[in-house]
Order: sequence, then structure tokens, then C-alpha cells
Amino acid sequence: SDPAPTLKSADGKSEFNVRGRVFVDWSAGSDDQGTFDISGTKLRAAWFGVEGKATDNIKYKFEADFGGNNVSVKDAYLQFKVQNWAYTIGQSKMPNSLEWNTAISQTSLMERGAFKSAFGFGRGMGIKAGTGGDTWGFTAGIFQGTNTFSSNTEEGWTAAARVNYGGKLDNTTWLVGMSGRLRDMNDRTLSYKAKAVTNLTSNLVSTGGTNKDKLIAAEAAFSHGAFFGAAEYAFLSATDAGTLGRNANFSGGYIEFGYILTGENRPLDIKKGAWGRPKVANPFDRKGGLGMWQITARYDTLDLTNNGAFGGQQTSYIVNLSWYMTRYVRALLDYGHTEVSDLALGAENASDVVGLRLNVDW
Amino acid sequence: SDPAPTLKSADGKSEFNVRGRVFVDWSAGSDDQGTFDISGTKLRAAWFGVEGKATDNIKYKFEADFGGNNVSVKDAYLQFKVQNWAYTIGQSKMPNSLEWNTAISQTSLMERGAFKSAFGFGRGMGIKAGTGGDTWGFTAGIFQGTNTFSSNTEEGWTAAARVNYGGKLDNTTWLVGMSGRLRDMNDRTLSYKAKAVTNLTSNLVSTGGTNKDKLIAAEAAFSHGAFFGAAEYAFLSATDAGTLGRNANFSGGYIEFGYILTGENRPLDIKKGAWGRPKVANPFDRKGGLGMWQITARYDTLDLTNNGAFGGQQTSYIVNLSWYMTRYVRALLDYGHTEVSDLALGAENASDVVGLRLNVDW
Amino acid sequence: SDPAPTLKSADGKSEFNVRGRVFVDWSAGSDDQGTFDISGTKLRAAWFGVEGKATDNIKYKFEADFGGNNVSVKDAYLQFKVQNWAYTIGQSKMPNSLEWNTAISQTSLMERGAFKSAFGFGRGMGIKAGTGGDTWGFTAGIFQGTNTFSSNTEEGWTAAARVNYGGKLDNTTWLVGMSGRLRDMNDRTLSYKAKAVTNLTSNLVSTGGTNKDKLIAAEAAFSHGAFFGAAEYAFLSATDAGTLGRNANFSGGYIEFGYILTGENRPLDIKKGAWGRPKVANPFDRKGGLGMWQITARYDTLDLTNNGAFGGQQTSYIVNLSWYMTRYVRALLDYGHTEVSDLALGAENASDVVGLRLNVDW
Repeated sequence: SDPAPTLKSADGKSEFNVRGRVFVDWSAGSDDQGTFDISGTKLRAAWFGVEGKATDNIKYKFEADFGGNNVSVKDAYLQFKVQNWAYTIGQSKMPNSLEWNTAISQTSLMERGAFKSAFGFGRGMGIKAGTGGDTWGFTAGIFQGTNTFSSNTEEGWTAAARVNYGGKLDNTTWLVGMSGRLRDMNDRTLSYKAKAVTNLTSNLVSTGGTNKDKLIAAEAAFSHGAFFGAAEYAFLSATDAGTLGRNANFSGGYIEFGYILTGENRPLDIKKGAWGRPKVANPFDRKGGLGMWQITARYDTLDLTNNGAFGGQQTSYIVNLSWYMTRYVRALLDYGHTEVSDLALGAENASDVVGLRLNVDW
Repeated sequence: SDPAPTLKSADGKSEFNVRGRVFVDWSAGSDDQGTFDISGTKLRAAWFGVEGKATDNIKYKFEADFGGNNVSVKDAYLQFKVQNWAYTIGQSKMPNSLEWNTAISQTSLMERGAFKSAFGFGRGMGIKAGTGGDTWGFTAGIFQGTNTFSSNTEEGWTAAARVNYGGKLDNTTWLVGMSGRLRDMNDRTLSYKAKAVTNLTSNLVSTGGTNKDKLIAAEAAFSHGAFFGAAEYAFLSATDAGTLGRNANFSGGYIEFGYILTGENRPLDIKKGAWGRPKVANPFDRKGGLGMWQITARYDTLDLTNNGAFGGQQTSYIVNLSWYMTRYVRALLDYGHTEVSDLALGAENASDVVGLRLNVDW
Repeated sequence: SDPAPTLKSADGKSEFNVRGRVFVDWSAGSDDQGTFDISGTKLRAAWFGVEGKATDNIKYKFEADFGGNNVSVKDAYLQFKVQNWAYTIGQSKMPNSLEWNTAISQTSLMERGAFKSAFGFGRGMGIKAGTGGDTWGFTAGIFQGTNTFSSNTEEGWTAAARVNYGGKLDNTTWLVGMSGRLRDMNDRTLSYKAKAVTNLTSNLVSTGGTNKDKLIAAEAAFSHGAFFGAAEYAFLSATDAGTLGRNANFSGGYIEFGYILTGENRPLDIKKGAWGRPKVANPFDRKGGLGMWQITARYDTLDLTNNGAFGGQQTSYIVNLSWYMTRYVRALLDYGHTEVSDLALGAENASDVVGLRLNVDW
């Protein structure tokens, strides 16, 4: 039972849902070089919004995040279904990466891979078109800016496309995919950086100083009974970001394996190219079910040092224990050890971080 | 079918609706003097709120805008119905202008006339009383501040009143109206300025420097079958805004004509004094209707130069093509040419701007 | 009839409510020393949120305030019921004070006692556990930070606990209670201050400069037919806040009596330790009921001068007239005279303030 029931109009053409989520995080940890030494709490997400159908072929979605007592509009789009295509206009997720296109309530760890932040997988204002079938999905879009236009600006543009292919045999679902992206930010500057393991930490690796880049990424994932695994890797070429006007070539990705101790399956949606919401066999309710328990181990890597750009090379080893009390309520425990090398002048760093999250969405 | 269905309590006395809107804008253009040279996107409105009845004679409404990742509370009021009067307490629209009292989802162009911004038709915190009949409407109110009280302030006040009168004969609806306003801002300063054609542009005309003004405005509109037209004009006297302590007399307004290519009628609500939401004969849904198509042409004028205040004289010629896919989903295309003269030292300016919008409300 | 009806899922396990409130305040007043001289309006609260059940033993609540066009997340928690205990995780009210644990829509005056602000009764991110029976309630919790984590911070902690006990005999309900609190803010600084009577005024008493304190508080209340009364008092020891490293001992509280002119009862919930929402016998609706009318008089005191800390000693005499039009719509009129002494160098001050509020919640 969906915690926020769907309202339908009498003619069945329009629908309406109130959406939202609350993620309560606690995290503690520090690094060797004194970049951060933290212990604290945060509403990692405090979302509120709606999703509806204006008529049978026009959907809309609007959600804003109030975490940290700031406003950040997330999805804000209309979507038109025309035959086998969906056209999305407004602010929505740009089509790169399996993990970025998976809702963060359904990622295996508390945070997505370091390459997600570093390479700027995010939302954009623009238009994208998606289609697919049982064994494949394709989305491409062009975007200009986000919900923060400032006066007298010529905003740059981002073009991105992703294709994925997969199949099901017996109780195995598998998926492979590729995506690419071109960005030209015009007057605005791009930077590349990533926090260590949880959202409360600070950036241990960081570089910047360009306004154009190119990215290509590959992804693969499987779900076999209670087992699952995924790997993604991306290469980014930042125009003129190295010394002497050379391009700097960065890369990053992750590989992870997980197991659901209580035997459920982590659903992999081939057409959408995203991990889905698992069905919890015995919810933790008055009947006294145990909920669903899941473990994951990930190797996460990011290299921001190349051709005179000394952002650093970062490797994290992260383990997660997740407890899905119901389909919509989840607790997570992350522990991660991070090593950083190849900073300017050969400097190195390392950190250990632990994180706890309790989240609900509706 | 309303996309956000109304919830009623068992006794029928209380009602509840979730309200909101998303307006996705794109605009490009520039002016001769280098004030702006833009190409970009913006959530012109990202509203969320509720509307309800606490009991059979007490309504409430609360909506906030999160466009630009800022918060701006819009309507936030209670309304009491006592016989033929409605008393509104809280933050609501001040009663001036046909177009200001029309929801922006139902204005003919992407933005209201330049005189709306320049003369500050807006919302205020206060109390207003409205009444009317089939052929007339009257609203008057007194307001003090908005939702931004700062400490140790004696806020000024605004008093405004509007009356309109009209009729229906055959398939013509017509309306005429007058409104007036007095403002005394106390310590705070009033300024007069307007953007060119779309919300992403900058102000080409601008003047300021007073804390009191008086306004009188006239309006007329008709809707005849698929044709419609409207004209408004306002005179404002800004106390001491000219040189040597003289009052500066500003003025502005517009005249527009439009036609609905698909034959529907643009509804004019005489009692409310506002344009309403048209009924779309053949919505753009799975049945494959064309939606409703509307064209409008507007002459828009604003004169902020008088008695030593050199805000500028601005004239815009704007055309709009609107596509109502359903009653609640609309796409708009604006093109506008703007000419500015009578700036300080006789300077002149001109701009060309194009805008696109896709909007939904619920 | 609740103005925002509850939505239930088909299996009855999940529930969903949209919540919110709008409080429109007007206030005017000034003090002798020129700290404030105000006349203005404010949305004292402009809340929006949801409350729901994810399953039969897991509740969640999320509300944010947009008053003043800022964002302030209020409740944001999950609550687990395990036998006779409720465990709340996330941001919620810390367990001190009868009045702080009463919803502000149900307090007797427009604002809570001066000691509430001064001593920082508020919400915290953490975990609390509550239990109780017909004649008692107990809640204890530990909290770290609020929804405003800043980078590289070791947040301090707050521990608080409250117990209350009471009973009903004939038409009298009574309650007594005690609570305590320890705070260690680490790098952050605590301050102690309070506004005069309404939220639009400024602080007449104020001191600061420590990061640790201890508090103990006592409370008593009764509701007898249409009469009610309450008293609370708290002692706070601010570590090192006096001169020469001495602790500064502050104290404050209030005593109030009230009477409901129309004869209803102000409900006192012993288990929750909070005033509840009265039932209005004859709502002010189309049937023409008078609503519920209530008067309250309060003596409010706060002493922030001790051991070389000269925050000031403040006494306010406040009277309130409240009109509950329905259970969810209320108008309030406050008048308060405030006297301040024991400021640095023996300075004194006094103020007179009047306030009006119209509020609705759903």
C-alpha cells in the first residue's frame, strides 16, 4: 500500500499524488590532513511535491528540497507521451549513469559514487526524449541552465544521451549501458570535486577551471535472486583544464556487490535503466516481520590528476548494511575508508567515515 | 476534470485542495545599449499550496513560490463570507487592474503589462472587502507590508479600491472598471521600473526615490465569440519624485486584441473582474484533439519621464501564440519589440526579445 | 470535521494527511529606551507539510515554515510504536515545558512565555522515547544539532527528559510535571534573550557567551469546567557566563488564569502533557453560532541578571481575548505591559505592545 494514496478524477483522466521524502543523516569521521573532523546531523533530504496527470497523455511532477533550510527545486517538468516516446520539458534528470537515474532512496549506499558529484550528473532545464522496450531504453536531451537564472546571462548548454540494453533469464536480470555528454557552460566555470563517503564530509579531491568538457560512461549491472552487482566507469576530458592549455582527462567509477540476507530481489528496471523499489516480504509492522536486510560492498575510484591538474586520486572502500522496514522506510549504516594520492607536490590523505540514515518517502 | 480533485469532509462543510503550478520559461534577446544579452531558462513559477474551507463560510488559501530557489509566499489569507460580502484577511492581491486580478495562467501574454511592475500592483497584508452582482463587482482594502517584516519598523500603508461594471448580450461579454490607490511607505522607498517583454530580461526603464504616491486606473474589456480585447491605462503621481521637490507624473497601459483560432471563447468574469480559464473543446489527449489555439497582439506603453525624473518612455509591440493543450496545460510563444526614449540626456534604446513558456497548474 | 480529510489506503495500514497553518499577525508598540517602535504585519507562521503512517506502527511527519519568506523545517521525523513506547527519530520537539509541548495554535496567548525563547526550548535532531498511561507521561531524548549542519563541524549535544503526572475528578483535570536538560554546544555559543509580548518586537533582555548549561523546570496546570490555569518555572545555570568564570544562574516562568466565556472546556492531555484543541459548541458558520470566546491573564517573568551577567530582569503583564470561530480558525488579541530592570549600570526599560492574530490550521 502506497503511503500517499493516488487521487483520481471521476473521468479517470487526471490523477494526483502528494510526494515527498525525509532523510535523517548522522555522520562522524575525519581525515589525516585536517580537512574535516565532523560529528553531526542533517536532513539530507526534506522533499515536498506533487506528481499528477493533467490528462491521459500529460504527466507533471514538481518537488522541492528544504534540507538545510534552503530551497532547491528538483524535478519540475511536464511529460508528454506520444506513441512509444516520452517527451519531458522542464527541469529533470540528465540521462547519464545507472546510479544517477536510480532514486537515492533505492541506491545501495547512502551516497552515489564519487564520480557522480565530480562529473556533475545532475538535473537540467530543457527537453529530453525517451523510448524503450522490454530489453532496452534510450534517452537523449538538451539542457540550458537550472532553476537559478541570473540577470544578463547567456546560459551555456549540455547535451546528453544514454542507451541501455538487457534481458531476463530464469531469475537473473542484467543490463549494460553507455552514455555520453557534452557541456559548454559559456561564462560559467565547471569544477570537479567529491566528498568522502557521506554528505556531511568535505571535499578531499577538487579541481576546477574550465567551461567545457566531454564525458563518456559505461555501466553494467545484474540482479540474480538475492545477489546483485553493478559497475560503472566514466572518462571526462576537461578542455584546457591542464597546464599550458592542455585538456585534463579525468576518470572515475565503482564496482559493487550485494546480497539480501532475507532473500528478496533487488529489482532492475531495464527500460528505465534504474534500480527499483524492492518488495519487502515481511514488513516490520504490528505482525512483527523482520523487514528486509541487505549488505553491499563497494570499491569506488576517482582520478582528478592529469596533465598538470592536481585534483587528486581517490579510492574508497565502503560497506553498507540496509534495513528496509517497509517498502518506504529504510535505515542505512555506511562505513568507508578513503585514500587520496597524487595531490599537488605528491601530498596524500586518508579518511574514515561512518554514517547512519533513516529515511521515509511517500 | 480538475487535475487535483477536491476532498470533502463527511459533513460537506470543509473542503480541501492541493494547489500549485509550474511555469518553465525560455527566453532570448538583447537591447542596443547592452543592458542585457540573454539566453536562458527559468522556473518563472514553481508554486505549491493549499486551498480549503474550514467551514461553510470560511475559506483559506496558502501558496508559496519556489522559483529561482527562493521562497516567496503569495496568497496567505482567510476569507469570510457574510451575506453578499467576502472579507479577506492576510496576504492577498490588492484591488487594482483587470490584468493583475487575472491569474497569470490566464493572461493573454507571458507577462502582464509593463505598468503592472512599474506601478507595483501586488499583494499586501491587510484586509479587503468585496461584493458584487451579475453586472458589477467592488473591492476595497487597506494593507500594511508584505510577508517580510523587519525588526523595529513602522510599516507604511496602502489603500486601494476597484469597481467594475459590465454585461452580456448575445455572445458578447463586456466590462469597464476604475480603480484607485494611495501608498505611504513611511521609511521605505518606492521605485518604478519594468522589464522588457519576458521575465528574464532586465529593466530598460527605471526611476525611484519617493515614499508616497497616488494612482488612478481605468480598464475596459470585451469577449465576443472567439474575439477578445482589453485596454487599461493608469496615471500615477509620485510625491516629490521630480527635481526641486515637484511630483513626478507617470502613466502607462496597454491595448490588445486576440482571436481564438479554434473558436472557443475567452471567458470574462464580470463579478470578479478577471479573465477566466477557457473551456478547451478538443483537448490534446489520447483522442488526438488539437487543443485550443489563440493569438494576441498588444501595444504596451509606459512613461516614467516627467518633471526631472528621467525613468524613460517605453513602448512595446508584442505578439503571442498560445496553445492550450488542456484547461490546465498551456504553451506560449511571445515576441516583442521594445523602444525606449526620453532617458536622461535624451538617450534612447531598443530591444527584441522572444520567449517560450510551458505551464501547468493544478 | 477536520478541514484536511485523512486519506487511507485500501488495507487501512497507511494513512496520509496534508498539514499546515497560516498565522497572520499585526502588532504595534514601543519601549522607553528606543529599542523598537513598531507597527506592522507578519506571517508568524506559514507552514506546509504532511503527516502519515507508513504502516500500522510507523508514523512520519514533515512540516516546514515559510514565514518571512525564509525556510525553516520544523517537525521532520519518523516515529515507531513498540508496545507502550514511541520512539521518534529525526527533528522533533525536545521534551521540556507544558507550553512548549502545546501546539502554538492552542496556547492561551499569541506567544509562549518569555522563558521559552530565553532558555531555548526548541526542536532538535536526535532520538527521543516516550511512554505513558492515563495518569502520567514520560519522554526523554538526546539531540545533536538541527537542520543546519555546516561543514567541518563537531556538533554539540542536548539531553532532555520530562515527566508529568495528573488526574481527573468530576470536571477537573490537573497535571504536574518536572523536566531537566543538559546542553553542551561544543564550538557554538548559547545566548539568552526574549522579545516583549509579540513576535514583531525586539529583545529587551539579552545576554550570552557560554556553550554549556543546565536547566530544571517545574509545571502545574488545571482545567475545571470553563476555568483553567497554569504555572511553569525554570532555573538555568549557564556555565562560565558570569564574570570571573562564575556560572550565571537565570530563571523564569509564568502563571496564568483563564475563563471560557461561552462555557466550553480547555482540554488538558495528561499523557501527552499538553493543552489540546477545544471543541467549539457553536461554530461561527452559516448557522450563525457565536464561536468560542476565551479570556486569559498572565504574569510572566524572566531574570537574566546574575553574577556579573546583566541580561536584565523582565516582567510582563499580558491579557488575551481569543475567539475560536471553529476548532481550526481563531482570532487573538493580546495586550501586554513589560517592565525591565537590572540591566547593566542599573538601567531600566518598559514597553506597551498590542497584537492581533488570525490563524487557521489544517
